[in-house]
Amino acid sequence: MENEAEKKWGFEVKQELNREREAEVAAFRYAIVSLMESVDKNDPRPVIPLGHGDPAAFPCFRTAAVAEDAIVDSVRSSMFNCYAPMFGLPLARRAVAEYLNRDLPYKLSADDIYITLGCMEAVEIILTVITRLGAANILLPRPGWPFYEGFAKRNHLEVRHFDLLPERGWEVDLEAVEALADENTAAIVIINPCNPCGNVLTYQHLQKIAETARKLGILVIADEVYGHLAFGSTPYIPMGVFGSIVPVITLGSISKRWIVPGWRFGWLATNDPNGVLQKSGIVGSIKACLGVRSGPSTLIQGAVPQILEKTDEEYFSKVIGLLRETADICYDKIKEIPCITRPNKPEGSMFIMVKLNPSLLEGINSDMEFAVQLAKEESVIVLPGIIVGMENWLRITFAIDPSALEDGLDRMKAFYYRHACQEALNL
Amino acid sequence: MENEAEKKWGFEVKQELNREREAEVAAFRYAIVSLMESVDKNDPRPVIPLGHGDPAAFPCFRTAAVAEDAIVDSVRSSMFNCYAPMFGLPLARRAVAEYLNRDLPYKLSADDIYITLGCMEAVEIILTVITRLGAANILLPRPGWPFYEGFAKRNHLEVRHFDLLPERGWEVDLEAVEALADENTAAIVIINPCNPCGNVLTYQHLQKIAETARKLGILVIADEVYGHLAFGSTPYIPMGVFGSIVPVITLGSISKRWIVPGWRFGWLATNDPNGVLQKSGIVGSIKACLGVRSGPSTLIQGAVPQILEKTDEEYFSKVIGLLRETADICYDKIKEIPCITRPNKPEGSMFIMVKLNPSLLEGINSDMEFAVQLAKEESVIVLPGIIVGMENWLRITFAIDPSALEDGLDRMKAFYYRHACQEALNL
Repeated sequence: MENEAEKKWGFEVKQELNREREAEVAAFRYAIVSLMESVDKNDPRPVIPLGHGDPAAFPCFRTAAVAEDAIVDSVRSSMFNCYAPMFGLPLARRAVAEYLNRDLPYKLSADDIYITLGCMEAVEIILTVITRLGAANILLPRPGWPFYEGFAKRNHLEVRHFDLLPERGWEVDLEAVEALADENTAAIVIINPCNPCGNVLTYQHLQKIAETARKLGILVIADEVYGHLAFGSTPYIPMGVFGSIVPVITLGSISKRWIVPGWRFGWLATNDPNGVLQKSGIVGSIKACLGVRSGPSTLIQGAVPQILEKTDEEYFSKVIGLLRETADICYDKIKEIPCITRPNKPEGSMFIMVKLNPSLLEGINSDMEFAVQLAKEESVIVLPGIIVGMENWLRITFAIDPSALEDGLDRMKAFYYRHACQEALNL
Repeated sequence: MENEAEKKWGFEVKQELNREREAEVAAFRYAIVSLMESVDKNDPRPVIPLGHGDPAAFPCFRTAAVAEDAIVDSVRSSMFNCYAPMFGLPLARRAVAEYLNRDLPYKLSADDIYITLGCMEAVEIILTVITRLGAANILLPRPGWPFYEGFAKRNHLEVRHFDLLPERGWEVDLEAVEALADENTAAIVIINPCNPCGNVLTYQHLQKIAETARKLGILVIADEVYGHLAFGSTPYIPMGVFGSIVPVITLGSISKRWIVPGWRFGWLATNDPNGVLQKSGIVGSIKACLGVRSGPSTLIQGAVPQILEKTDEEYFSKVIGLLRETADICYDKIKEIPCITRPNKPEGSMFIMVKLNPSLLEGINSDMEFAVQLAKEESVIVLPGIIVGMENWLRITFAIDPSALEDGLDRMKAFYYRHACQEALNL
């Protein structure tokens, strides 16, 4: 046997292929990871994670007892150890249909529901399906959730961005939508309640979106992963309500409302009372995509009927109350930081988008520099707006423990005063 | 608003893209689904599923109590509700490393382990990584597990097949391997214990495979999803034992040994004491791939240390004893069916490959026709060999309840005598 030092192994990874893949989808994750790595290990203070929405780390955001019980019952039954069928366990599909039907003017059946590995896999699947419409393009919101761009890029699907308008409470710029669409446009994506903007779209605006999509002959993909997390004056309305105007594909999950993102249970629902998705082959294409992957753990699937049916109002109210409280803290405290302006008070999801004015700061010229320096000096993580499509904005989550949130925003304020330029301090 | 009947929706899925995707990976699944659909709904007898390996449906194959307890502890702790890191929870990675280290002459660290959604996702990832080696080809066993071909096809990765030799207890045809490999060959795949053949490779043969791979300058991908499920005279040896001869990428899972395929927990381990995988960029490429997917439920990840560390010998012995018993039943009963011959007694995994002689049957000309007709008439499902690469063979699982197995094989015997041609009966 030759010595290892002498053995030449011929293979080497083509790095450009890796880089492409990394750039594709993982920009957001790498941003968070690299900001975490910027934190000074010698800082004795806890890291304050305002960069991504995962309140599950905080005891006050513990999931419903009934959800934990449902998992225990699922595992103790020993009925959910087998491989799951390709589209999900029938009882899980039925439970999701019934859950969504509570808010719809028509009825979904279990066959309209496809169980996915969180909402993220639902996004991946629907973008793959859209790609199969041929020379398609898709309309994505700006700011948005960068995984859409990533999966579109991986599929070589053309993306066109329409703006969400801060001056109109982050409503969709529908005129821009009409101008962007052409005969190859397949769909428009709406995220409501909105990540990253924290607004909730009104019934009237959702209806206008549906009518615009109908006029343009395009689908609506409604990302409702933050569904029901509305704590302001605008109630949450699922886009599926307008399914008879336009075919709506709803993406959802238990991750946010039940605060269990790690459990990985989501769904894709076809709201299509007129059968358009069936006729166009989109339903068949969704099924084809689901044939080549594993799906979520059957333990979770088996627990979902109990989770969706038995969780009581008390738990939901507690979560909504906490989000309202933390959104208020966040909104109020940001006012004390002069380099940041707030276009709107959050009414939903777990985020606020705020505008950064780097000209008030010495040696900090962008949202990215702000975020990196803040992580280094204050162990506070915020997401640079560039990651969600808006440079010199910041996305901040308020869905953390209230006292940690106050601490984090106080540190941000101290950071501002340490870096403010003289002119700003003299204002 | 115009009437729905008048509205023309422009989009239509390009069916050839769907068909390509379906053909890619899902051939096996569709085969099983379509055989299940062939079953006569009016047959009062239970369906006997000998077509795919999922013993979890049978009470005698219930998982270890300690595994169920571990899930309960995981959910009750409320520590595992957050998003998981990209490569898996550190405690899960560490637990898998320690589990594999029990059988290795060197030590893996947690950093050598990547947590995946069952073994299937590990296969998908490593084939994507191989594709990034440029103009690569890969050597796959025949018969094999069709998902390898599927994922290779999806990645446009060239596949070259080497035979497993029934006359030599399904050992690898190493001469064929040497003849097939060229300077673009990146890796050879070994599935041990073997799906679909039911053999277990000896230490000596595994070493020869390692030395052949080293000589050819190619990696070994060792699919050990059936690891430790060896119940004959040949002990199970992990390929990683030969990691200092050749870099070995091990794919594994708790699905089979703990009989919980629905839980979806697997891993990819780099057995690379000489650092070849690191230097060639393969480790970096694995990480890039893992950046764009969700990974298994954190509830399961959180339970895995307890599952791997605390499961006692009694449970493992019970499973091995049951598999030995059912393998014996299967082997003995098949002898009573003249149109089927058995090249070997199963010693591992959950399967046997047997040869079908259609010339002894009237009106049944292939493994596929045999399987379809058997499903229709007897509600017994077996997998046509063509699906795993060998026409006119059958893959039969014995990992089901012993009495159901006897019932299924008795029905197969009755089926034979009903369809045997006159010459066969006169033999």
